[in-house]
Amino acid sequence: MKCRICRETAVIALPRHNSAFCKEHFLDFFKRQVQRAIREFRMFSRKDRILVCVSGGKDSLTLWHILHELNYDTTGLYIDLGIGEYSKRSRRLCEDMAKSLGRELKVVEFSKAVAPIKDLARAAKRTDCSTCGVVKRYYFNKVALEEGYNVVATGHNLDDEAARLLGNLLRWQLEFVQKQYPVLEEEKGLKRKVKPLCRLTEQEIAAYAFLNRITYLRDECPMSHDSTSLLYKEALNRIELQSPGTKHFFYLQFLYRKRKGNLKGLSENAAVEPDGAETGDSKGGPFQCRVCGLPSSGQICSFCKITGYLDKSDQTPYEHA
Amino acid sequence: MKCRICRETAVIALPRHNSAFCKEHFLDFFKRQVQRAIREFRMFSRKDRILVCVSGGKDSLTLWHILHELNYDTTGLYIDLGIGEYSKRSRRLCEDMAKSLGRELKVVEFSKAVAPIKDLARAAKRTDCSTCGVVKRYYFNKVALEEGYNVVATGHNLDDEAARLLGNLLRWQLEFVQKQYPVLEEEKGLKRKVKPLCRLTEQEIAAYAFLNRITYLRDECPMSHDSTSLLYKEALNRIELQSPGTKHFFYLQFLYRKRKGNLKGLSENAAVEPDGAETGDSKGGPFQCRVCGLPSSGQICSFCKITGYLDKSDQTPYEHA
Repeated sequence: MKCRICRETAVIALPRHNSAFCKEHFLDFFKRQVQRAIREFRMFSRKDRILVCVSGGKDSLTLWHILHELNYDTTGLYIDLGIGEYSKRSRRLCEDMAKSLGRELKVVEFSKAVAPIKDLARAAKRTDCSTCGVVKRYYFNKVALEEGYNVVATGHNLDDEAARLLGNLLRWQLEFVQKQYPVLEEEKGLKRKVKPLCRLTEQEIAAYAFLNRITYLRDECPMSHDSTSLLYKEALNRIELQSPGTKHFFYLQFLYRKRKGNLKGLSENAAVEPDGAETGDSKGGPFQCRVCGLPSSGQICSFCKITGYLDKSDQTPYEHA
Repeated sequence: MKCRICRETAVIALPRHNSAFCKEHFLDFFKRQVQRAIREFRMFSRKDRILVCVSGGKDSLTLWHILHELNYDTTGLYIDLGIGEYSKRSRRLCEDMAKSLGRELKVVEFSKAVAPIKDLARAAKRTDCSTCGVVKRYYFNKVALEEGYNVVATGHNLDDEAARLLGNLLRWQLEFVQKQYPVLEEEKGLKRKVKPLCRLTEQEIAAYAFLNRITYLRDECPMSHDSTSLLYKEALNRIELQSPGTKHFFYLQFLYRKRKGNLKGLSENAAVEPDGAETGDSKGGPFQCRVCGLPSSGQICSFCKITGYLDKSDQTPYEHA
């Protein structure tokens, strides 16, 4: 197997691109894909202050590493959710990355200030993963707002996004399909959110991390057993194996059509706001949450709703941290 | 495991319906699902003459059996494609079914009159499966037209249709998604086509065949190795196993939304006619094929185009049979 560019021995094969690369040209390819996503979806410029959400996994640590390599102004944000040994190890890996890049890492002590995520999920009668999602999204936005960051960046990759799209289509949740995009523009108190790794697969990110000696937590989150996204990823990987390029085409063609307006009609007659559907008071949002004052699709935001099930819900951990 | 209706020992579990049935109540359930599809999609009535396309497999033989049970006026149609021993055995099973129901079976001797399907595929430089599809669709319609049948019925099941929908979405072939429906109405020389088993899974059809002692060919067609639909079925079955009901919801919710007009916008700005895309002359169709005179989306129909690659393409096998 030879590098497509220099004909040296290749270190990685990319069946979906029908090519292979040596270390140097793979890293070039990887950088170009990230830059292309940033440019194509107008994510940010070198003037922006970027808050990079890191979990200690390969995607988010790779994201921080490559954005720093590309000379963007980055700060890490880690949220300690209190998932035992898993949280301790993942926090240490984020701290190590901060040190090696010479950049700041902010830490939200959610578990100490409010509750371990598992207790919160039980109290709120939600799944672990959906509770975790609400808490993370809340702090990503809150910290960016309060500390003057322009953009929040997360490590979602092509596999994540393709699996999410598949799940939304299998359940005909067209209102979510409508919203799915690698950039969510800033609006009324919600900071711009971006996914610069959306053109790269898990395998490619793992290769980048390996070649750059990035130490990351290999284990899946011990609470992710109820995550259906793993199931959709497996199904797509099964298809990809026999028909390389399917995943790439499925997701990137979706984005391409969306940008061209070719999916405009892909919506229901009556769109339903996901959060508002629960509270029944979503019309005319976004509102200001009556509890924390941050933007919300209902009168009380999802974060304050679920932490309201705990006794100590009146504490706002980031301020105490 | 007990029958949901009578609490006797169940013979089949249906996780997607969260229930189980004894033999009697499973057969009731099965009949009701077929009747519901016929009624819901206005497929046909007892006054219609129905041409049932049979291949010797479980789906098509089950379809013929149940439509006969439900007192519809049915005739079988078998197309001999010349796939060696496979064709001989499948033809015999169709003849057996005709005898046991006391109904007529029509046979098109395609392989003798034109060529074995494999030779045709090679000459036309198409895959085996797509060549087979063109030939079958051509004769289903031709025989129905020439012999005065109102409706052509095929044995496509829920798994087939869900896999097809998934494939069309993964490739963003929205023009095919637009057309996919269990009834294609008669138009300009194309007879109405229906899929009465669209609410039933492969597993349920296999159970019906077993309980009714229907002998069918268990082997997949030996030429279907290049069929991507098997791949999509596997992927959906993988998801179904962990999340029962996904397949059912995915396909039937699609149909439901389609009927309600909730997917109207699910189309491209510029729709492309699948056959016309190849000939470049699809505008304003359907045409009459210049070779055989039957309806066509281009000036020459797909059947005549591919048989044109053979020397003896001027023979029209059904007339000689």
